[in-house]
Amino acid sequence: MSEYNQPIITLTTDFGLRDPYVAAMKGMLLRECPEANIIDVCHDVPPHQVLHAAYVLAHAAPYFPEGSIHVVVVDPGVGTDRSILVGQFGGQLFIFPDNGVITIIRKMLPLEGLVSVRDYKFLGDREVSPTFHGRDVFAPLAAAVSNGLRISDLGPTPPTYKLLDLPEPIWAGGTLVGKVVYVDRFGNLITSINERHIRERFLPHGEFQISCNGHKVSGLKTTYGQAGLGEPLALIDSMGDLELAVNLGRACDEFDARPGMTVEVAQLHFLEG
Amino acid sequence: MSEYNQPIITLTTDFGLRDPYVAAMKGMLLRECPEANIIDVCHDVPPHQVLHAAYVLAHAAPYFPEGSIHVVVVDPGVGTDRSILVGQFGGQLFIFPDNGVITIIRKMLPLEGLVSVRDYKFLGDREVSPTFHGRDVFAPLAAAVSNGLRISDLGPTPPTYKLLDLPEPIWAGGTLVGKVVYVDRFGNLITSINERHIRERFLPHGEFQISCNGHKVSGLKTTYGQAGLGEPLALIDSMGDLELAVNLGRACDEFDARPGMTVEVAQLHFLEG
Amino acid sequence: MSEYNQPIITLTTDFGLRDPYVAAMKGMLLRECPEANIIDVCHDVPPHQVLHAAYVLAHAAPYFPEGSIHVVVVDPGVGTDRSILVGQFGGQLFIFPDNGVITIIRKMLPLEGLVSVRDYKFLGDREVSPTFHGRDVFAPLAAAVSNGLRISDLGPTPPTYKLLDLPEPIWAGGTLVGKVVYVDRFGNLITSINERHIRERFLPHGEFQISCNGHKVSGLKTTYGQAGLGEPLALIDSMGDLELAVNLGRACDEFDARPGMTVEVAQLHFLEG
Repeated sequence: MSEYNQPIITLTTDFGLRDPYVAAMKGMLLRECPEANIIDVCHDVPPHQVLHAAYVLAHAAPYFPEGSIHVVVVDPGVGTDRSILVGQFGGQLFIFPDNGVITIIRKMLPLEGLVSVRDYKFLGDREVSPTFHGRDVFAPLAAAVSNGLRISDLGPTPPTYKLLDLPEPIWAGGTLVGKVVYVDRFGNLITSINERHIRERFLPHGEFQISCNGHKVSGLKTTYGQAGLGEPLALIDSMGDLELAVNLGRACDEFDARPGMTVEVAQLHFLEG
Repeated sequence: MSEYNQPIITLTTDFGLRDPYVAAMKGMLLRECPEANIIDVCHDVPPHQVLHAAYVLAHAAPYFPEGSIHVVVVDPGVGTDRSILVGQFGGQLFIFPDNGVITIIRKMLPLEGLVSVRDYKFLGDREVSPTFHGRDVFAPLAAAVSNGLRISDLGPTPPTYKLLDLPEPIWAGGTLVGKVVYVDRFGNLITSINERHIRERFLPHGEFQISCNGHKVSGLKTTYGQAGLGEPLALIDSMGDLELAVNLGRACDEFDARPGMTVEVAQLHFLEG
Repeated sequence: MSEYNQPIITLTTDFGLRDPYVAAMKGMLLRECPEANIIDVCHDVPPHQVLHAAYVLAHAAPYFPEGSIHVVVVDPGVGTDRSILVGQFGGQLFIFPDNGVITIIRKMLPLEGLVSVRDYKFLGDREVSPTFHGRDVFAPLAAAVSNGLRISDLGPTPPTYKLLDLPEPIWAGGTLVGKVVYVDRFGNLITSINERHIRERFLPHGEFQISCNGHKVSGLKTTYGQAGLGEPLALIDSMGDLELAVNLGRACDEFDARPGMTVEVAQLHFLEG
């Protein structure tokens, strides 16, 4: 296998694919690390939406091989005094601005080391644009780390770092109240309620109902196809989260729902009782 | 050349590029087959549109090198009892749900072997989500095949498999009646009428007219630039199909045309006679 | 490093990613040059917009390693008598239709050689579609060059070649008048006025004002974050051009501005005097 020992460097940005920014980063990466296997995680993060990036990263990165380097440039604070962090989580490296984009990964993969970049010797004498650190700082940094620079040489472990506020579901009487956290391209509503909540607290106690924006779904299906054509359903998605969907339709349109909206789960006997 | 013997694995999905799904598949592929050269065929297949995927796959895959592995995950039946098929067509391997997505490839490349996957030993003991077979089944399957698993070990040749209903053009008197089958990003209308129909049946017999939704074009051009700016034209496209276009414009808008609409070809003397 | 000596071939097209065209090109490239490291520069160039392609190419290609091969297929004249050019600029090769797409690169990287392709022996006996030279001519040409074909064997240096008309800013009294040349996905307005104009002519002389479509911004910021939330600002962007932006907003919407619109810079004392 040694002959295929190409380092994997992934990119997650809000740069889109219409502009030269992603390609400029890739050029820089290949200039510094010609053997890099560059993989796009996502460039269609809506501009400046750190939470979207956090979600996408956390639902893709865990499937990559050990030693992969994940570079995240959703960075509205570029050029300000926000730090750049390099963290090792579950055997993989993450290079990201200190803006909370690591919030969800941190719940999924064990943190094994974190530094705040203070030593910029890896930049050599190159000029750094104050508005395009993706190309001028993140790419050379990823290449340097890929080429063997130890993260402990980059700077100290920060005393603290930013995390996004992602509230856990709460109980209101017998009702579990969570939120829609993500709407995917199929219009599926991914919620902050997870498999464990459902399996431990609702499944053993008979029928239950899930509601969002006035629309109601009873019980769980296993696959989309178990619901009728155009029929709403709930299931546990491939990441273990409660998801509202419509078979061959778009739940976000049917339910007129967006991220942030409330999702409630309650036993039927409780609702009726 | 042996040192560059990277297996090519292509992906055709309706996952889009905003969500983590494509990247999760790539991570899984690289975990199991680090030397894979992963090439995106298309991720912007409109959700669940098997015909669109069939068209795109058939117009891209034939140009890949022998031995390429094409993975198609446009799979509204995920998790139901639809089978996963692995077929060898023209020296290349295709891994796809049994939903007809292979319909057009099958007309273009010789079928050399087909199995319905029954033996899932390649999964080892990993968990399989019922809603994300792209990541949990197709990716490990492609990696296993790439790593040497023989397709004959995966299961039996199925007695039958699904094909989409793609009607051939028909003759109505002296008029050949076909359909728009695909509209590309330039707004070009690709039809079910092919080069042979035109060259054998119309070209030798003088002038002919092509009509769609009340709009008429006379004869064939060779290139877009042979028509005036904004002028409609017909040509034989790069796949040998009759195409309606507008030079530097959008035929789908000019003609107000969509897939499924009728396209007719008739000799002028027939129309006039 | 020799074991990673994969030639880099980049693609810049207006093909989009919904259709099979980009993948067909990649298949052809890999068939002829299996070791190619294919990198997408951009496929979302708006159809036929040569200037957009010229801008994107020029702001990405300079960051790639020496020896990279950049293939540009934004080619509304496909199949007509427009030539295909191969040029070496700053140690990199560019393969492009003679339609001016090289206009901006030419200002940024030294021209070291240019030929107009006349000898098509590299095509062997393959058929060439008159409407898809990306797949049938550009891809085999890039592969042939990557495999060692010398560009001087492809044809003569053309006596002239097309350039787009990109007017330099002009002085009208004490006011420098330029244009918006590009709007990026963040809505930032990139102008034809560059760093040198500002640093030499305005910065030393006190306060100055930048205006576009009736909206005014005073002086320069260094980063987006130095402006208040939703506040307009001007800065020198990562390519050295004057850019109008809105912190965490979209300048193109705030200013109701499009490419081609006038941007003016003037000293305040001049405006007031």
